[in-house]
Amino acid sequence: MRLSEYTDYACRVLMHCAAHPGLTTIGELAERYGISKNHLMKIVQDLGRKGLLETTRGRGGGVRLGVDPTQLRLGDIVRMAETDLRLVECFDPAHNRCKMVPACQLQHTLNKALDAYFAELDRVTLADLAWPGSGFGVLPDLLAARVPATAPAPTSAEKSAPAAPA
Amino acid sequence: MRLSEYTDYACRVLMHCAAHPGLTTIGELAERYGISKNHLMKIVQDLGRKGLLETTRGRGGGVRLGVDPTQLRLGDIVRMAETDLRLVECFDPAHNRCKMVPACQLQHTLNKALDAYFAELDRVTLADLAWPGSGFGVLPDLLAARVPATAPAPTSAEKSAPAAPA
Repeated sequence: MRLSEYTDYACRVLMHCAAHPGLTTIGELAERYGISKNHLMKIVQDLGRKGLLETTRGRGGGVRLGVDPTQLRLGDIVRMAETDLRLVECFDPAHNRCKMVPACQLQHTLNKALDAYFAELDRVTLADLAWPGSGFGVLPDLLAARVPATAPAPTSAEKSAPAAPA
Repeated sequence: MRLSEYTDYACRVLMHCAAHPGLTTIGELAERYGISKNHLMKIVQDLGRKGLLETTRGRGGGVRLGVDPTQLRLGDIVRMAETDLRLVECFDPAHNRCKMVPACQLQHTLNKALDAYFAELDRVTLADLAWPGSGFGVLPDLLAARVPATAPAPTSAEKSAPAAPA
């Protein structure tokens, strides 16, 4: 039942990056989540290859989120990260040795349970997990980061004032 | 996500015994489900210790179900057999290194998903899995086995005839 270490760490990295839109270093992630730098490097590279992170090399480099966190569901992340969703032997016809498969209800029942599991995960997006109060940071930072780079950065007073009508 | 081999095999043994109320031998189970006898022996002994199977030693011995299959849910079996339901590191405070735990929503969301998974498994009893058409045998055999041993066994004609009113 346990999720892989890769899935666990991938969730934490993506949640952190969703809440911190600037570049984050591997060192910061390692310190915050108690994961070794070498381990994180492999995960970050893999999430980069999958398009979920953007990585910048060299001095001053780091990682940032490569996708819209409001569109990425926790279920999508777990499906991507868990490479083996064959709950029991008979889910894999190539290696099954049980002779009851054609009529057995166990596989069907486990599949329904797996669907229910993912339906819960699909209710929650990466943005939901990175929301203020979740402890991962402040999502408004992320929204502010989407303002075109030419727009002046808001002052502290502007940040706390109610939005002016358009 | 994968269930342990122990859970997989325990389900098969219990389903077989629910559908075949007479004594079953380790050899029969091994042949039918493609599991080694040594492996099965350990599982059967453990299910016996837990009261789910009754075991009879010696020549003519074997195993039979030790519980009412209409009262044992698949969720109960999986909870009993899966010893590690700590989906990610932070489920285990003794070994957690992540510093975000106090406010993180990930654990809460995964717990809800796990609840949904078990809710589906709890809809199905061992008797449901052993029902005619499941390929595991004929549950009426089981019900017939509950008739006191002094009652005459029904003939083939009686078996196929509609039940007489009491």
